[in-house]
Amino acid sequence: MTKLFLDPAEFSEDQLDGFVDLYSDRLTRVTGGVVTHPPKEPQVAVVVGGGSGHYPAFAGLVGPGFASGAVVGNIFTSPSAAHVYSVAKAANQGKGVILTFGNYAGDNMNFGIAAKRLNAEGIDTRIVVVTDDVASASTPKDRRGIAGDFTVFKAMSAAAAAGKSLDEVERIGRHANDMTRTMGVAFSGCTMPGATEPLFDVPQGKMGVGLGIHGEPGIKDETIGDAEEIADLLVSHVLDAVPSDAASDRVAVILNGLGATKYEELFLTYGKVAAKLRAAGLSIVEPEVGELVTSLDMGGISLTLMWLDDELEAAWHAEAYACGYRKSHAPLETLDPTAVSTATNEAEAELTEPEGDAVAVAEQVRRGIGIVAQLMKDQESHLGKIDAIAGDGDHGRGMVRGTSAAQNAVDKLVAKAGFTPSASDQLRTAGAAWALEAGGTSGVLWGAGLEAAAGTSTVAEGVAAFADTVQQLGGAQVGDKTLLDALIPFRDALGAGSSFSDAADVAVKAAAATSDLVPRKGRAAPLAEKSVGHPDAGAISFSMIAQRLAEEFTQEAN
Amino acid sequence: MTKLFLDPAEFSEDQLDGFVDLYSDRLTRVTGGVVTHPPKEPQVAVVVGGGSGHYPAFAGLVGPGFASGAVVGNIFTSPSAAHVYSVAKAANQGKGVILTFGNYAGDNMNFGIAAKRLNAEGIDTRIVVVTDDVASASTPKDRRGIAGDFTVFKAMSAAAAAGKSLDEVERIGRHANDMTRTMGVAFSGCTMPGATEPLFDVPQGKMGVGLGIHGEPGIKDETIGDAEEIADLLVSHVLDAVPSDAASDRVAVILNGLGATKYEELFLTYGKVAAKLRAAGLSIVEPEVGELVTSLDMGGISLTLMWLDDELEAAWHAEAYACGYRKSHAPLETLDPTAVSTATNEAEAELTEPEGDAVAVAEQVRRGIGIVAQLMKDQESHLGKIDAIAGDGDHGRGMVRGTSAAQNAVDKLVAKAGFTPSASDQLRTAGAAWALEAGGTSGVLWGAGLEAAAGTSTVAEGVAAFADTVQQLGGAQVGDKTLLDALIPFRDALGAGSSFSDAADVAVKAAAATSDLVPRKGRAAPLAEKSVGHPDAGAISFSMIAQRLAEEFTQEAN
Repeated sequence: MTKLFLDPAEFSEDQLDGFVDLYSDRLTRVTGGVVTHPPKEPQVAVVVGGGSGHYPAFAGLVGPGFASGAVVGNIFTSPSAAHVYSVAKAANQGKGVILTFGNYAGDNMNFGIAAKRLNAEGIDTRIVVVTDDVASASTPKDRRGIAGDFTVFKAMSAAAAAGKSLDEVERIGRHANDMTRTMGVAFSGCTMPGATEPLFDVPQGKMGVGLGIHGEPGIKDETIGDAEEIADLLVSHVLDAVPSDAASDRVAVILNGLGATKYEELFLTYGKVAAKLRAAGLSIVEPEVGELVTSLDMGGISLTLMWLDDELEAAWHAEAYACGYRKSHAPLETLDPTAVSTATNEAEAELTEPEGDAVAVAEQVRRGIGIVAQLMKDQESHLGKIDAIAGDGDHGRGMVRGTSAAQNAVDKLVAKAGFTPSASDQLRTAGAAWALEAGGTSGVLWGAGLEAAAGTSTVAEGVAAFADTVQQLGGAQVGDKTLLDALIPFRDALGAGSSFSDAADVAVKAAAATSDLVPRKGRAAPLAEKSVGHPDAGAISFSMIAQRLAEEFTQEAN
Repeated sequence: MTKLFLDPAEFSEDQLDGFVDLYSDRLTRVTGGVVTHPPKEPQVAVVVGGGSGHYPAFAGLVGPGFASGAVVGNIFTSPSAAHVYSVAKAANQGKGVILTFGNYAGDNMNFGIAAKRLNAEGIDTRIVVVTDDVASASTPKDRRGIAGDFTVFKAMSAAAAAGKSLDEVERIGRHANDMTRTMGVAFSGCTMPGATEPLFDVPQGKMGVGLGIHGEPGIKDETIGDAEEIADLLVSHVLDAVPSDAASDRVAVILNGLGATKYEELFLTYGKVAAKLRAAGLSIVEPEVGELVTSLDMGGISLTLMWLDDELEAAWHAEAYACGYRKSHAPLETLDPTAVSTATNEAEAELTEPEGDAVAVAEQVRRGIGIVAQLMKDQESHLGKIDAIAGDGDHGRGMVRGTSAAQNAVDKLVAKAGFTPSASDQLRTAGAAWALEAGGTSGVLWGAGLEAAAGTSTVAEGVAAFADTVQQLGGAQVGDKTLLDALIPFRDALGAGSSFSDAADVAVKAAAATSDLVPRKGRAAPLAEKSVGHPDAGAISFSMIAQRLAEEFTQEAN
């Protein structure tokens, strides 16, 4: 929904004020729109336009290497003929004018009237209408213009910048349009400035296949598929409409977001689209993935292909410095793609095969890791519930991910070595895997703690190293209602000579006592209050692990 | 809401697949993220990172002139230390590594662990944490990092690209952070891939002042203001936190959209922000208005200022060819800003002062224009209701805008001339003003029709020229349920010698008879059906005008 405006009726004018302020280095505002500062070497003026609400189309496409001017109508409304005339007259550099726009009744009329008037005044003016939307009609000439505006405008602008004649620029524009096809789907409607309801709706869970950029009816509503299915739908519709006289299998590609569809979604879908295009034998040339022709905050996506020949490929490749679209060729020749080291996995540590007493210790550690992983699976839901009281409820899940990753990594280590490596080797491997897979704060603390413990020789030393690392990395203090409130008493009990079993009892009591604590400063106050009377999930999981290990290995000792 | 995905749990990986495919000319994927193909001339590696969902931060900022690598965590989740290590090791070119990221607990821990490990291996690694969010804490070092990531990353990247040493790049980064301040507001929460509810809510009609980019608590919720008030809020909060040691009044400016806030809204707001910054004595250097650090599809906006000295200004100005951000300097020297003709208003037509009988005709035309404008005001609501049955209900409003504009333009013409110009002059002026101000299809038809009528000598000729123009421009036929269904019978009656009054009666009957008609092909079928039994609004307004003029001037003749 549009949130930032002043008088909704003046939205289009008001936004243009800010836009022209921003790009005053290359633009001038004129009645009805904007024109680029003219090049010192005059060229054919390519004047684009239509209603606003489609940024960067149309005003954002003005600048060196792209359009010479843009006529800016009100939101989704054709500009008047007088405004088209005004902008074209200001954009004209004495080499003639191309008026180019998407195929809509109002635009056809207003640009048509302006062209007549310009021609009557002796300014040679041609019209090139974009008709790329394959969903809007079966006959190419009756189709609406959508994101294909971009390829057609760019082809003509590059030709004009290269000094070609009006006849040539017009011919290239018509040819670019003949070679351009677009198919789109919409997920949600857009909202006009000041409106509280969307201009149109797409039913919940559906997508409007072929829906127009102003909400014009499409082919049908379908259940929203996953990104793979949507990529399939877009590619198959565009390829069903391949121009019969396409010159090659090389295609310029635009995957265009309509407003509310985000970059990450576009990238994900592009990966699928690109694979399908290649599978169809097409070669993708300088693809563009982003927002090039939008519809305010409409949710949706469209795929445009322009089949290339040498002329269109040169135009597609040409540099452009429009306000809302900059194409400049990165200095890739200064890079060395062969020099990247992707072998970033660390050199495999040399493993120690334990001898003497260390063999039993190594086996105990291995068994312990498995026991803890099983315990966390059993307790996942219980820990999640405790964590959900004042946290995000993912503590159980995180502990399962971390301990399972540790167990798997150690299993692989054993399989590879052909023996059970030393306790140190196992703890180092377990810690690294835990931190890598568990994510979140407890994942990194447990992982780093185990890696620290790996460098020690006794249980008490290992627990102390673990505790030091957790304290140092996490930055919390005893009493802050964290893991430390069970861990530090446990460490101290072991340090004072208690048995593992007695120390585990201390940890269990201390974890239970975190119910009385208030979370440390920095957490939001409502959460702090809410958690009093409930223990800390991190302290509880730690004490459970200590207790379970004590049971296991004390039983054994008995 | 995120609509395009496959397995939500794999969203971050899946989108990176497509991203790397798209930018394979400059990027390589490594465990945990992406690195740029290394420059042939080695430089300090600036490695950025954090959770994903903030595109173009962080992966989109990798490329020549910008970051050397990006660590890509899951959505809104810190990447693991192992992933940071992996990316940094691949990005390292033997000149040392900067790890830089926003100030969040998880990132501090994971990047911190990775830095220790890299340093232990002999790779000189420094950490620069971004702390620009003035709403998040009063003490600068405790603040979170938001859109100021961009200025700080860019400053260091430019220094690295310029061949500066690790010490220098680190120093410039800390200095850039010290000079950077950001303030944001949020209008609506964002939705995680696969989720059906937003991650957090902003109450309807409110804005979260200072809300964090992952929904962290802000300062307070306030009623959404207009764009001017929001600009005021952003500017005043940032200027309240001006760095005490700012070197100049020159500032780099970012007005950043968080995802669902559209370009037009950003431009509109930028106009207000820029005015306020200038009023505060600041000089704006190369402003950026767009999406640079987003939060999926969150609605909101933030303002970032970096106070410049010569060093930071050079870094801000430097070219960059990152995937999601391209800064290249347009060849503005090839343009001539002084050459734009903004005097696009046509040369004033020479006005004819009527003589003899033409004086009375001119006065009648002038009175007629006023009568029609009044009639449309009286009938606005009635015409709107007819139009709403099968159209968008704006016909009454459009006719009022057009006729009032015509009346005003003629009044001005008379005032300027000092006499009532000829009927032709008035009709030409009225038509141009109508088309300019009314918008929509009926606006352009009426405007062009009047301009055509202006070139004729009798009422019958004028009506015929009007009808020809409407028919030609609109492309409709009699029977298509449009204005033509009243206009053509009216023209034919006049042409056959009927009185104006009799012809008006014909028009009124013909307009009423449009109730039986079905709209022409091309309109959506449900609308076509719905309108049967109701007349066409355009035919009705035309017949009303004919009838009212007949009454007025027939009375007079009596």
